[in-house]
Amino acid sequence: MSTATILVSGMTCGHCVKAITEELSALDGVQEVSVELVVDGNSSVTVTSLEPLDPGAVREAVDEAGYSVVED
Amino acid sequence: MSTATILVSGMTCGHCVKAITEELSALDGVQEVSVELVVDGNSSVTVTSLEPLDPGAVREAVDEAGYSVVED
Repeated sequence: MSTATILVSGMTCGHCVKAITEELSALDGVQEVSVELVVDGNSSVTVTSLEPLDPGAVREAVDEAGYSVVED
Repeated sequence: MSTATILVSGMTCGHCVKAITEELSALDGVQEVSVELVVDGNSSVTVTSLEPLDPGAVREAVDEAGYSVVED
Protein backbone atom coordinates (compact mmCIF):
# COMPACT_ATOMS: atom_id res chain seq x y z
CA MET A 1 0.00 0.00 0.00
CA SER A 2 1.21 3.49 -0.84
CA THR A 3 0.17 6.86 0.59
CA ALA A 4 0.72 10.29 -0.96
CA THR A 5 -0.28 13.67 0.44
CA ILE A 6 -0.68 16.67 -1.84
CA LEU A 7 -1.68 20.28 -1.25
CA VAL A 8 -4.59 21.58 -3.30
CA SER A 9 -5.64 25.21 -3.67
CA GLY A 10 -9.10 26.63 -4.27
CA MET A 11 -11.13 24.15 -2.23
CA THR A 12 -13.75 25.99 -0.18
CA CYS A 13 -16.58 23.67 0.81
CA GLY A 14 -17.95 20.17 1.10
CA HIS A 15 -18.86 20.14 -2.59
CA CYS A 16 -15.19 20.73 -3.41
CA VAL A 17 -14.21 17.83 -1.14
CA LYS A 18 -16.72 15.60 -2.94
CA ALA A 19 -15.53 16.66 -6.41
CA ILE A 20 -11.85 16.00 -5.59
CA THR A 21 -12.63 12.73 -3.81
CA GLU A 22 -14.66 11.41 -6.74
CA GLU A 23 -12.02 12.35 -9.30
CA LEU A 24 -9.10 10.86 -7.36
CA SER A 25 -11.05 7.74 -6.38
CA ALA A 26 -11.46 6.99 -10.08
CA LEU A 27 -7.69 6.53 -10.52
CA ASP A 28 -6.49 2.93 -10.87
CA GLY A 29 -5.74 1.26 -7.56
CA VAL A 30 -6.92 4.07 -5.30
CA GLN A 31 -8.33 2.68 -2.06
CA GLU A 32 -9.01 5.81 -0.05
CA VAL A 33 -9.05 9.58 -0.40
CA SER A 34 -9.03 11.76 2.69
CA VAL A 35 -9.28 15.55 2.64
CA GLU A 36 -8.45 18.07 5.34
CA LEU A 37 -10.33 21.12 4.09
CA VAL A 38 -8.70 24.50 4.68
CA VAL A 39 -11.15 27.11 3.43
CA ASP A 40 -8.78 30.07 3.18
CA GLY A 41 -5.60 28.21 2.29
CA ASN A 42 -4.33 24.99 0.78
CA SER A 43 -6.20 21.82 1.62
CA SER A 44 -4.33 18.63 2.34
CA VAL A 45 -5.43 15.61 0.29
CA THR A 46 -4.16 12.14 1.17
CA VAL A 47 -4.52 9.35 -1.35
CA THR A 48 -3.96 5.71 -0.45
CA SER A 49 -3.36 3.33 -3.33
CA LEU A 50 -2.25 -0.23 -3.97
CA GLU A 51 0.82 0.97 -5.89
CA PRO A 52 2.53 4.39 -5.88
CA LEU A 53 0.57 6.78 -8.12
CA ASP A 54 1.99 8.68 -11.08
CA PRO A 55 2.21 12.31 -9.88
CA GLY A 56 1.17 13.49 -13.36
CA ALA A 57 -2.03 11.44 -13.20
CA VAL A 58 -2.82 12.83 -9.76
CA ARG A 59 -2.27 16.39 -10.98
CA GLU A 60 -4.51 15.74 -13.97
CA ALA A 61 -7.29 14.35 -11.77
CA VAL A 62 -7.11 17.42 -9.53
CA ASP A 63 -7.21 19.70 -12.60
CA GLU A 64 -10.16 17.74 -13.92
CA ALA A 65 -12.06 18.42 -10.69
CA GLY A 66 -11.37 22.13 -11.19
CA TYR A 67 -8.53 22.70 -8.68
CA SER A 68 -4.75 22.94 -8.68
CA VAL A 69 -1.98 20.98 -6.99
CA VAL A 70 0.33 23.33 -5.11
CA GLU A 71 3.95 22.37 -5.80
CA ASP A 72 6.18 22.17 -2.71
CA MET B 1 -43.74 37.93 -13.57
CA SER B 2 -42.32 38.39 -10.07
CA THR B 3 -38.74 38.89 -8.91
CA ALA B 4 -37.38 38.38 -5.40
CA THR B 5 -33.83 38.87 -4.18
CA ILE B 6 -32.59 37.16 -1.03
CA LEU B 7 -29.25 37.10 0.77
CA VAL B 8 -27.75 33.68 1.42
CA SER B 9 -24.82 32.90 3.70
CA GLY B 10 -22.24 30.14 3.41
CA MET B 11 -21.93 29.98 -0.37
CA THR B 12 -18.27 29.72 -1.35
CA CYS B 13 -17.88 28.27 -4.83
CA GLY B 14 -19.46 27.32 -8.13
CA HIS B 15 -20.75 24.06 -6.65
CA CYS B 16 -22.69 26.10 -4.10
CA VAL B 17 -24.16 28.23 -6.88
CA LYS B 18 -25.22 25.06 -8.71
CA ALA B 19 -26.77 23.50 -5.59
CA ILE B 20 -28.81 26.63 -4.76
CA THR B 21 -29.84 27.14 -8.38
CA GLU B 22 -31.06 23.56 -8.73
CA GLU B 23 -33.04 23.66 -5.50
CA LEU B 24 -34.73 27.00 -6.22
CA SER B 25 -35.40 26.13 -9.86
CA ALA B 26 -37.45 23.18 -8.66
CA LEU B 27 -40.02 25.48 -7.00
CA ASP B 28 -43.33 25.85 -8.82
CA GLY B 29 -43.34 28.62 -11.41
CA VAL B 30 -39.67 29.57 -11.12
CA GLN B 31 -38.35 30.82 -14.46
CA GLU B 32 -34.84 31.93 -13.62
CA VAL B 33 -32.36 31.88 -10.75
CA SER B 34 -29.40 34.22 -10.80
CA VAL B 35 -26.62 34.23 -8.19
CA GLU B 36 -24.04 36.87 -7.43
CA LEU B 37 -21.49 34.84 -5.46
CA VAL B 38 -19.72 36.61 -2.60
CA VAL B 39 -17.18 34.18 -1.23
CA ASP B 40 -16.50 35.84 2.13
CA GLY B 41 -19.93 37.36 2.72
CA ASN B 42 -23.58 36.95 1.82
CA SER B 43 -24.39 36.03 -1.75
CA SER B 44 -27.28 37.67 -3.53
CA VAL B 45 -29.76 35.28 -5.12
CA THR B 46 -32.46 36.58 -7.46
CA VAL B 47 -35.41 34.37 -8.29
CA THR B 48 -37.81 35.19 -11.12
CA SER B 49 -41.16 33.41 -11.03
CA LEU B 50 -44.56 33.53 -12.71
CA GLU B 51 -46.27 34.39 -9.41
CA PRO B 52 -44.81 35.82 -6.18
CA LEU B 53 -43.15 33.00 -4.21
CA ASP B 54 -43.97 31.99 -0.65
CA PRO B 55 -41.00 33.23 1.42
CA GLY B 56 -41.25 30.10 3.57
CA ALA B 57 -40.90 27.85 0.55
CA VAL B 58 -37.86 29.82 -0.62
CA ARG B 59 -36.26 29.54 2.81
CA GLU B 60 -36.92 25.81 2.86
CA ALA B 61 -35.36 25.35 -0.59
CA VAL B 62 -32.24 27.25 0.51
CA ASP B 63 -32.06 25.14 3.71
CA GLU B 64 -32.47 22.02 1.61
CA ALA B 65 -29.45 23.03 -0.48
CA GLY B 66 -27.46 23.37 2.75
CA TYR B 67 -27.40 27.16 3.19
CA SER B 68 -29.28 29.83 5.13
CA VAL B 69 -31.32 32.85 4.12
CA VAL B 70 -30.04 35.96 5.89
CA GLU B 71 -32.95 37.95 7.28
CA ASP B 72 -32.85 41.68 6.54
